Amino acid sequence: MSTIETLNWRYATKRFSDKKVSEQDLNTMYEAIRLSPSSYGLQLFKVLDIQDEKIKEELKPAAWGQAQITEASNLFVFCNYTNITEGHIDEVLKLKSDVQNIPIENLNGYGDFMKSKILALPGEAQSVWTAKQCYIALSNLMNSAAELGIDSCPMEGFEPEKFNEILGLNEKGLNAAVICAVGYRSEEDPTSGAPKVRKPKADLIEMV
Amino acid sequence: MSTIETLNWRYATKRFSDKKVSEQDLNTMYEAIRLSPSSYGLQLFKVLDIQDEKIKEELKPAAWGQAQITEASNLFVFCNYTNITEGHIDEVLKLKSDVQNIPIENLNGYGDFMKSKILALPGEAQSVWTAKQCYIALSNLMNSAAELGIDSCPMEGFEPEKFNEILGLNEKGLNAAVICAVGYRSEEDPTSGAPKVRKPKADLIEMV
Repeated sequence: MSTIETLNWRYATKRFSDKKVSEQDLNTMYEAIRLSPSSYGLQLFKVLDIQDEKIKEELKPAAWGQAQITEASNLFVFCNYTNITEGHIDEVLKLKSDVQNIPIENLNGYGDFMKSKILALPGEAQSVWTAKQCYIALSNLMNSAAELGIDSCPMEGFEPEKFNEILGLNEKGLNAAVICAVGYRSEEDPTSGAPKVRKPKADLIEMV
Repeated sequence: MSTIETLNWRYATKRFSDKKVSEQDLNTMYEAIRLSPSSYGLQLFKVLDIQDEKIKEELKPAAWGQAQITEASNLFVFCNYTNITEGHIDEVLKLKSDVQNIPIENLNGYGDFMKSKILALPGEAQSVWTAKQCYIALSNLMNSAAELGIDSCPMEGFEPEKFNEILGLNEKGLNAAVICAVGYRSEEDPTSGAPKVRKPKADLIEMV
């Protein structure tokens, strides 16, 4: 399935059936998230895959009571780090040194450059920046799901503060940036099969 | 090519050859951008595909002098709307009415709901929100390029204010959110073929 076919197949699923996503398919989706590019390759996010029905029930009122939260097989919560530390950067430098077999001292210049750029960002700007990176991983989750015939619904309609509290994210320096319900569309979903609404190319793309 | 294969193939290309991307392939990438999901389906962004060599030269110093800006065949600039108006929302309601053959008056309730949520956001929050949506389209650009054997380099290392000025974006209520160089890797690219550095699954994904 090409990216175009994938994008044409998917839609923001509002009602899910009770069919569960298999472990094998979940692992494919995890891998798509894991391989997603991020700024400097720092991957400053975590993803919770909520399968526990009680926790989904608890989260539902903090997401405008939307049915997808509890009906979907899995609720993915993309969490961004709110404050970036030297440790976050050193961790990735160490990983790069190991994976690419580069002496760590040869990466110090690059590390200092990253630190000078990133740690200088004011607090709120750090969180905004790491939240943006989550949308790339979100996109790859939706596409890899669609390839497997699995539906999804990306959602921003929720209260991050309440999600952070219920999921214990504050203590971990994380914030719920965006969420995505994943599962199989219900036959009762009224939006299934509706023609896709997209602006024409001329309104979106300009060649310069 | 599956999303996983695509993600494994691609890498942030630092040096490009002078080979140009064909019009046909560009149209595929435009379509991937156009079909990208966005919050409420509002698509509050525009994408400039910069092919003009003089403009690329002018932009280069505003992007830390990075070689990709001028070497790549195309420089995609993802621009988000900084201030959302009723008109932005009405435009999409009209489109939805036309495409899905729904009387516009039946969409007024949904329109009022969107307006109550979106127009209440303080100015800066509107721009942050529309910028995030660009990252989904960016991801689909990179993946659709990779499927065609085309390289890309997503970049945040640039000065948005200078890009906005050079490209005349301020007058249009737009802001350069993120950019992406697109073309074919040069044989001289030192990072080509390096093993991909990604955190292990256990550090990124947690089942709850």
